Amino acid sequence: MQTADYSDFKQSVLDQAASLRSRIRSGEHTGTTSGAAHSLIQGNVVILPADWAADFLMYCQNNPVALPLIGVSEPGDPALPELGRDLDIRTDIPEYQVFRDGARAETVTDIRELWQGDFVTFVLGCSFSFEDALTRAGLTVRNVEQGSNVSMYRSSIATRPAGRFHGNMVVSMRPFNGADAIRAIQVTTRLPKAHGAPVHIGDPSQIGIADLAKPDFGDPVTIREGELPLFWACGVTPQLALENARPPIAITHVPGKMLLTERLNEELAVL
Amino acid sequence: MQTADYSDFKQSVLDQAASLRSRIRSGEHTGTTSGAAHSLIQGNVVILPADWAADFLMYCQNNPVALPLIGVSEPGDPALPELGRDLDIRTDIPEYQVFRDGARAETVTDIRELWQGDFVTFVLGCSFSFEDALTRAGLTVRNVEQGSNVSMYRSSIATRPAGRFHGNMVVSMRPFNGADAIRAIQVTTRLPKAHGAPVHIGDPSQIGIADLAKPDFGDPVTIREGELPLFWACGVTPQLALENARPPIAITHVPGKMLLTERLNEELAVL
Repeated sequence: MQTADYSDFKQSVLDQAASLRSRIRSGEHTGTTSGAAHSLIQGNVVILPADWAADFLMYCQNNPVALPLIGVSEPGDPALPELGRDLDIRTDIPEYQVFRDGARAETVTDIRELWQGDFVTFVLGCSFSFEDALTRAGLTVRNVEQGSNVSMYRSSIATRPAGRFHGNMVVSMRPFNGADAIRAIQVTTRLPKAHGAPVHIGDPSQIGIADLAKPDFGDPVTIREGELPLFWACGVTPQLALENARPPIAITHVPGKMLLTERLNEELAVL
Repeated sequence: MQTADYSDFKQSVLDQAASLRSRIRSGEHTGTTSGAAHSLIQGNVVILPADWAADFLMYCQNNPVALPLIGVSEPGDPALPELGRDLDIRTDIPEYQVFRDGARAETVTDIRELWQGDFVTFVLGCSFSFEDALTRAGLTVRNVEQGSNVSMYRSSIATRPAGRFHGNMVVSMRPFNGADAIRAIQVTTRLPKAHGAPVHIGDPSQIGIADLAKPDFGDPVTIREGELPLFWACGVTPQLALENARPPIAITHVPGKMLLTERLNEELAVL
């Protein structure tokens, strides 16, 4: 690909994202961002008061596979210049989940009314980036094929605590046959900032999952004859840690309704 | 590691190999080379008359995972300068398998009497190189742990034919738990010239293997609760193709009794 063609490509992706972001910002688009502007990094979001930020930053540092940090704001600043020129975290997520004292409270489509001068925003890489990479590698991602949300489970894998934050890892599951499973491990290894390689393959009971047909979050997907389940660390993990840490207020995205950045997935690749 | 230390390391490995090679050359050592001078590349060997060499070279080209070519001799020349200064293919393998018209005939510990002026030697990378890499990565290789030969099976995976050479792939199997299986795929991906990543993981019947406890070559190994079998392409594959192609004479190593080269496994790594 020529440099000029590539610039054109990136610009067309950015234009597409800008259009969707504007509809998210106006409250017109409140649904999932799955499959939208799929060349761009999408992010899991956790917003916390500044006096909870140091613990959470250390929690990310201690758990880089489940919480791959790709952006942090200045306290009180709704911008994220590392991730895009035109981002406002108060309006640019389709739907927000508010946590009060660790419990899921209201969901809203705009947090301008809730914004505090001490809020710090953390953005974590998301499996949508590696689903894009898997698709480009010629693999079929079952939840994309079925048009459903990915299956997510509370695992028995403990995260490494930091201050008040602790809890088990949430994992997402995608089934593949043997040869495709090997390829999927190779492809996702390249993307450590999007959870990287799977954390488990095969028998779900080894990581405390009793029934694949009953995910704790998202939708069940079909597992076909000869396929193995592959489990990746999931960006819903910090939501369990929020339940345990019980900050007076915290705000996240609603699973599947992510922050659309202005950076390309390929910029996350290490190999 | 300092450059000087590394030179010392390589020299000590080469000295160790030279000592073993001299005992192989004299006929004193006729056993396996498993675990010997384990930092050095060991090779699968196929020796053919020159009028069979072009077909076999194309067979390697068509099947780089099962037949990763790392050295080819000049016709009639028993040296392999690419792989070591001090190699003589007529004496430097512990035990040779002679094929006559495609059938396994005698085994010998020296082929000086059988040598022909038109013989071409092909050396293929070997799983011993990746077993070394797996061990360095902190994984336990079951056949090494049990002190047995690796389990090998005739699979239903067809190789891509070339001229008179065709047949199914032989695969070697090593069991790992989920997390180690993922790590093993990453580690062996770095070594395409030692068969690279596995070709299959999980259900053996998917690649035509009925019973893991009954390998076609080598020894059975224990598979523990929660472990998955991983299958790698194996350097015994060309021996099946020799059975099908039926050259009047061909000579290979006896499985597990390999050619010890003077190059380090790490020199094969692509990442």
